[in-house]
Amino acid sequence: MVISIPTRHKAALLRELGKPLAIEEVPTPTPSDYGVLLKVIAAGICHSDIHIWAGDYRPIGVPKHLPWILSHEVAGIVVAKGDKVPEAVRVGSKALVYAWQFAEEDERTLGGYTQLARKRARLSIDVPGGLQEYIHVPHYRFVVDIDGLDDPQAAAPLACAGLTTYNAVKKIKPHVGPDDYVLIVGLGGLGAYAVQWVRALLPYVNLVVADIREEAIEFASKLAKVDAAVNPSKEDPVRALSEITRGEGVKAVLDIVGLPQTIGTYTKAVATLGVYVMVGLMGYEAPIPVHHIIRNEIRIFGCYTGSLSDQHEVVECARRGLIDYRGTVGRKYRFEEVNDAIKAVAKGEQLGRVVVVFS
Amino acid sequence: MVISIPTRHKAALLRELGKPLAIEEVPTPTPSDYGVLLKVIAAGICHSDIHIWAGDYRPIGVPKHLPWILSHEVAGIVVAKGDKVPEAVRVGSKALVYAWQFAEEDERTLGGYTQLARKRARLSIDVPGGLQEYIHVPHYRFVVDIDGLDDPQAAAPLACAGLTTYNAVKKIKPHVGPDDYVLIVGLGGLGAYAVQWVRALLPYVNLVVADIREEAIEFASKLAKVDAAVNPSKEDPVRALSEITRGEGVKAVLDIVGLPQTIGTYTKAVATLGVYVMVGLMGYEAPIPVHHIIRNEIRIFGCYTGSLSDQHEVVECARRGLIDYRGTVGRKYRFEEVNDAIKAVAKGEQLGRVVVVFS
Amino acid sequence: MVISIPTRHKAALLRELGKPLAIEEVPTPTPSDYGVLLKVIAAGICHSDIHIWAGDYRPIGVPKHLPWILSHEVAGIVVAKGDKVPEAVRVGSKALVYAWQFAEEDERTLGGYTQLARKRARLSIDVPGGLQEYIHVPHYRFVVDIDGLDDPQAAAPLACAGLTTYNAVKKIKPHVGPDDYVLIVGLGGLGAYAVQWVRALLPYVNLVVADIREEAIEFASKLAKVDAAVNPSKEDPVRALSEITRGEGVKAVLDIVGLPQTIGTYTKAVATLGVYVMVGLMGYEAPIPVHHIIRNEIRIFGCYTGSLSDQHEVVECARRGLIDYRGTVGRKYRFEEVNDAIKAVAKGEQLGRVVVVFS
Amino acid sequence: MVISIPTRHKAALLRELGKPLAIEEVPTPTPSDYGVLLKVIAAGICHSDIHIWAGDYRPIGVPKHLPWILSHEVAGIVVAKGDKVPEAVRVGSKALVYAWQFAEEDERTLGGYTQLARKRARLSIDVPGGLQEYIHVPHYRFVVDIDGLDDPQAAAPLACAGLTTYNAVKKIKPHVGPDDYVLIVGLGGLGAYAVQWVRALLPYVNLVVADIREEAIEFASKLAKVDAAVNPSKEDPVRALSEITRGEGVKAVLDIVGLPQTIGTYTKAVATLGVYVMVGLMGYEAPIPVHHIIRNEIRIFGCYTGSLSDQHEVVECARRGLIDYRGTVGRKYRFEEVNDAIKAVAKGEQLGRVVVVFS
Repeated sequence: MVISIPTRHKAALLRELGKPLAIEEVPTPTPSDYGVLLKVIAAGICHSDIHIWAGDYRPIGVPKHLPWILSHEVAGIVVAKGDKVPEAVRVGSKALVYAWQFAEEDERTLGGYTQLARKRARLSIDVPGGLQEYIHVPHYRFVVDIDGLDDPQAAAPLACAGLTTYNAVKKIKPHVGPDDYVLIVGLGGLGAYAVQWVRALLPYVNLVVADIREEAIEFASKLAKVDAAVNPSKEDPVRALSEITRGEGVKAVLDIVGLPQTIGTYTKAVATLGVYVMVGLMGYEAPIPVHHIIRNEIRIFGCYTGSLSDQHEVVECARRGLIDYRGTVGRKYRFEEVNDAIKAVAKGEQLGRVVVVFS
Repeated sequence: MVISIPTRHKAALLRELGKPLAIEEVPTPTPSDYGVLLKVIAAGICHSDIHIWAGDYRPIGVPKHLPWILSHEVAGIVVAKGDKVPEAVRVGSKALVYAWQFAEEDERTLGGYTQLARKRARLSIDVPGGLQEYIHVPHYRFVVDIDGLDDPQAAAPLACAGLTTYNAVKKIKPHVGPDDYVLIVGLGGLGAYAVQWVRALLPYVNLVVADIREEAIEFASKLAKVDAAVNPSKEDPVRALSEITRGEGVKAVLDIVGLPQTIGTYTKAVATLGVYVMVGLMGYEAPIPVHHIIRNEIRIFGCYTGSLSDQHEVVECARRGLIDYRGTVGRKYRFEEVNDAIKAVAKGEQLGRVVVVFS
Repeated sequence: MVISIPTRHKAALLRELGKPLAIEEVPTPTPSDYGVLLKVIAAGICHSDIHIWAGDYRPIGVPKHLPWILSHEVAGIVVAKGDKVPEAVRVGSKALVYAWQFAEEDERTLGGYTQLARKRARLSIDVPGGLQEYIHVPHYRFVVDIDGLDDPQAAAPLACAGLTTYNAVKKIKPHVGPDDYVLIVGLGGLGAYAVQWVRALLPYVNLVVADIREEAIEFASKLAKVDAAVNPSKEDPVRALSEITRGEGVKAVLDIVGLPQTIGTYTKAVATLGVYVMVGLMGYEAPIPVHHIIRNEIRIFGCYTGSLSDQHEVVECARRGLIDYRGTVGRKYRFEEVNDAIKAVAKGEQLGRVVVVFS
Repeated sequence: MVISIPTRHKAALLRELGKPLAIEEVPTPTPSDYGVLLKVIAAGICHSDIHIWAGDYRPIGVPKHLPWILSHEVAGIVVAKGDKVPEAVRVGSKALVYAWQFAEEDERTLGGYTQLARKRARLSIDVPGGLQEYIHVPHYRFVVDIDGLDDPQAAAPLACAGLTTYNAVKKIKPHVGPDDYVLIVGLGGLGAYAVQWVRALLPYVNLVVADIREEAIEFASKLAKVDAAVNPSKEDPVRALSEITRGEGVKAVLDIVGLPQTIGTYTKAVATLGVYVMVGLMGYEAPIPVHHIIRNEIRIFGCYTGSLSDQHEVVECARRGLIDYRGTVGRKYRFEEVNDAIKAVAKGEQLGRVVVVFS
C-alpha cells in the first residue's frame, strides 16, 4: 500500500493562553526507526485540555512552550513506519494512540505501570498532542490497533475517558460482590463510560450515581441501567445513600469529580471494607473522616489514566460491544470548528465527550 | 488440676468519669457453655482507656454505663471452662484474651475480619475489660494460648499495641521491596512494636522514624535498627524525607498518630505506588493532597486492631523471638497502684507500654 | 405463623449399598438452640451420591453407617428454629441448606474457607442428607435465604453444582482478560452451570467447551453462547485448541471431569501464565507436563465446593437472573420416584441436573 | 575513564557436543546504540549448561548452531556502551548480566514477566553465553549494577541460582504464616540459595529440607538454620513429614529437583491450602494426587527463573547481607580450567555452585 504523505500539514496551534487556536501549517515528520506516522481521524477534547488552554497548569510548567498542540485522545490511520517496526503494525490499519507514553523505560514501565514512568511523554501535556492532521508516535508499542471498531472517530475518547474509568473499575473489582452498591460521582464524559464499565464488568452489583445535573443523570441512565440516583443539590447525599443501601453504605465509590466537597462527603458513605477510588483532579486538598476510615478499614486508591495493557483491553471490550463507545460521544465537530469544540467543553454544558473529526 | 475460685473478686471500677478508679469487690461469674474464666495476670493501659476514663467517647456512647472496667490488653491463667469447650483449652494454661470480640458472627467474621463484626463485643469499649482479678470470656475461640512466652505479664500488650501494628505492617508487606523506605510516624507504645515488626518481617527495607520527642526516637532505636530519623519540631519533615530517600519518597507510611498535621504532612512524602496506613485515631478529619495521590496512584488504608488469626500469628512471632515484647513495656504497676498507671499514661510521659500486674 | 410438625416423617433410606432406597418413617427432630428445622422442597442427586450409594467410597469410610440418607443439594421451608436463632431467620421463609458444614470452627472457617474445616459435617458424606421430608440444620448460619427465587425446586442444585462451578470461575477471574480463551472440560450437571458463570462473570472472554457427547455440547450451547467446541473423540483436542487460540493456548481451563486423560491432555493446552482449575474427582492420579508448566509459569488450583460466603453470592446471582438456574435442571422426579432418579444419574444419560421434589 | 578494548578475545567454544570446550579467539563486538560491552569477571556453570553441552536439548533445537558459548551466570565490568545508553550505566562499574533477556518486548515483558517473553534471547540457550572474556549485552536494561558487592566473582550465580530461588520463595510468601512448615526438596546449587531466602524472607516459618545426600543436607545446614531434614533414601518421606508437622502437612514445597518421584511424593505431603512450587526440570511428566489436591484446595505453581525486577531485588538483598552469596559457591575454577569445571558439574559431586573466573 502506497500512501502519499505531504511535507506539511495543518495543526490547531495554541499561540496564546486562553485565546482561540490558530490553524496553521507545520512540517510533517518522517518516522524514526521505531516510530509510526498516523493521519489523524479524530481527536477528543478533555477537560484537562481546557485547563492547559486556559493557563491553569502554567504553575506546574504545562505547556512547556508556545505554540502548543492540544488533545491526548487520538485515533488515526497508520501511513508510515520506521525500519524497526514489526510487520504486525500495518500501513493502512486504523489505530488509537496510547496517550500516556514514556520517554525512557524504568522499573515501573517494566512492571506494568506504563502511565507512571519517571520520564513521561504524555500527549498534550509533555509533548504536543493530536489536534493536527498528522501525528508521529515515537515507538510502535504505543500504537493500538482498532480495526474492527465501526466508528473510529468515536473511538478516540477510549484513550482517556474510556481508559481511565476502566482502570478505576478494575481497581474496585476485587472488592465488590453480588448485591453490593457501587457509586459513580460525576456524570460527565468519564462518567458516561464509568456506568457502562460497572454494568459490563460487575453485572452483580447495584449501580448508584450522583450528580447535581438532572440531565447528566438522564444521559448516563440511557447508557446503563441505573438502580438509584442521588442529587446532592436536592437532598443530603450521605443520608440518601444510607437509605438506599439499608444502612450498609456503598462498597465502592468512583469519584470522577475530586472536589473537596465530593471527597469530604462521599468518603463518609463508604461501607466497612469498602474502597474509594479518586479519579477527578478538581481539588488540590480534600478532607477525609479519619475515624470512619480506620474503624471500618476503608481503602482510598488514587487512579491515574491507565496502562498500555489496560488500553488494549479497553479496545477489545469496545470491539465486543461490552460498552457503547459511540453513545458516549456527545457531539462531533469538524477540524475547522475546533474553537467551537473548545468553547463547548470550557462551558461544561455538553453532555458526553466532545470529539474533533478530520475529513 | 483443681483450682479454687472465689465467689467475689476485686475490680478497679470507673465510678465517675475522670476520677480515680475504686478497687471494689464484684461477683465472679461461672463459665457459660462455650465460655472460659481466667485469673488475670496483667492488664495493659492503652490511650483509648484514658479517653474512655476522661469521658472523651461519651458522645459515641462509650462507656455504656457506670461503673465500668477498663483495659483490653489482658493476659491470664485459665481457671475454669464451660462444658462445650474443647480439650485443647486446658485449665492451668496461660492465655491472652483476644480483645476485639464479636457478639454474633456474620459474613465479616466468617471472612477473616473478626474485628469488624456488625455486633462487636470489644473489651473495655463494648463490654467491661480486664482491670480485675478474674475475667470471663464468653467463647473459647477468643482465648489464645501463650504458653512458651517467658513473661506473661509483658505479653498483655500483644492484644492491642502488638496486634494493631502487626496488622499494619502486614498491610504494607505486599507493596514494599528491597531498598524501599518505610516510615513509622509516632513512637509511643505502638511505635515501639511497629519498628520491630518492620525489622522482622521486612528485613530488606530502610526504616525511618518520625517523632517530636528525641527520647522516643532513642527508645525505638534501642528496640530496632533505625536507618534515619526525622524530628518535625526541628526540620521540615517532607524535605528531610525527600533527601533521605533521594527524591523518591517513602514507599510506605505507618501513621500511629493520626492527627490532621501528620496525615496532611506525611501523605505528601509518599512515593509513586506507595501506601499510607492510618492507625492513629487522634484527629476526626484530616486533609489529603488530591493531585499527588492520583498522579502517583497512592493508596491509603484504614487499619483497625487485628483479626483473631493475626492475634495467633503475633503470639507465635513473640514465641520465636522475632520481636522483643518485653522491651516494649515501659513500666509495670501493681494492681494497687492502678491509678498511678492511669495518671502516667494520661500525662503521656511514659515511654513504651504501661502494664498493671496482679500478684 | 404456626406450622404443624409431625413427630415422624418419610425418608429414603440407603439400607444396602447398590440396592434401591427404601422409603420409611424416621423421627422428626426438634431444633437445638442454634438449629433450624426445614420441610424439604427438593433434593438434588449428585454423582457423588451415586458413588456413596454404590459403595465406591467405602474404603474412605463413607457412609459411616447404614442406613444412610443421600443428597447434599437441599432446598426447603423453615418450619421451626431454636431459641438462639436470630429473628432474621424467619419461619415460613424458603431456604437453601449450605451443604459443606463444619462441626467445629477453626482458623480455616474463620478465614473464609468454611468448606475446608478440620471437622467437616458435610451433608450425605459426614452426616445424613436431604432425601427426606424434614431436615435439621444444626446451626442457622448454614441456612441461606432464597426468597425471591421463582422456582425453589430448581434452586436445590445451587448448593453443589452451582456453588462449585462459581468457586472455580472466581478462581480464574483474576487471571483472564479481554479476548482470552476459557475452556470448560465436561458438560454434565456442573458444566451446565460453569458455561453460564463464565458468560456472566467474564463477559470479555472466548468460551470453549470440550466433551465427547455431542448432545452435551448442544445442551450447554443452549444455556450460554459458546464460541468453539472440541470433541476429543473426533479430533486431537490439543491441536484443535491450538488452532482455535491461534497458537496462544487457553488462558484458563476448568476441568470438571478430572480423569488422568483430561488432566494429562488439557494441561498441555494451557497458555503462558494460564491457570488450570481441577474440579472433577474421577481419577486418583494424573500426569502433568513438567517442562510446559515450569517454562510458562502455569498454575494448577484444586477447587472444592465453595464457602458459605460463595453460597450467598450464588443465590444472589441467581436472584438477579445472571444465570438460568432453571434451565440447568434436566429432570425433576417425585419423591416416590427416587429410585428412578438414582438410576438416571447412575446411567449418566441424563443431561443437566436431576432433582427429587417433595409435594 | 579510558579502557582499551582488544579487537579479539578468548572464548571457550563448544565445537562438538559432549567434547571438551576449545579456548579460541573470537572478534570483540562494538556496542550497539542501546548496547553495553562487559569484560567478564566470572561465569557460573549451571546444570542446564551441562545438558546443552551433552546434547540433551538438541531435540528442542538448543544450541542453535555450533560452535556455541555456554553460561548464563555472568558478572563483568562495563567497558563500553552505545550512544543511547543513559549516564546511570557507567563505564568502569561492575555489573551482573540479566540472563533471561528478550529480543522484542510484548505484553508479558511490559507486565513484569520479562523472562516469559514470546521472543526470548536467553544467554547460552537462545544466544551465546558468558564463557568468554568479553560479552555484548544488546540493551542496557539487562545490565544490573553490583557495585557494593565485595566479591563480584561469587555474585555471578545470582543471575540464575540466586534469582530462580528468590522468585520461588516470593511465590510462596503470601501463602505461609508463622509456625507453618516450608520444605525445600533438593539441596544442590539452587537449594543452597533457597534455604537462605526462606530464612531471610520468612523468618517465622519452620524450615525442612529433603535430599538423598547427607553431605548436601550438611552443606545447606551451614548456610541456614534447618529445623528438620528428611532423607528419602532412609525413611518414608511422607510419613516423616507428617510426623514433623504433627499431621498438618507442609504449607509450601519448593521442588528444585522436579523428577516424577519428587513431584509424585511430595505433593502428597502438602497441607490444606498449601502450595507446591515446581522449579526443577528433571522430569518430563509427573503424577499428581487428584483427590488430595482438590479436597484441600492445594495450588501448584510453575516457576521459571525470575524477572528483571526480581534480579534487582536479589542483588539488593545480597548487598544488605540477607544471604551469604559467597558461601553458596562451592568452587572457583580459572578460565583455563573451564573443562574441569564442566566435568565437576557433570559428575554432580560438587556441593554449591561452580564458577569460572577470569583474571
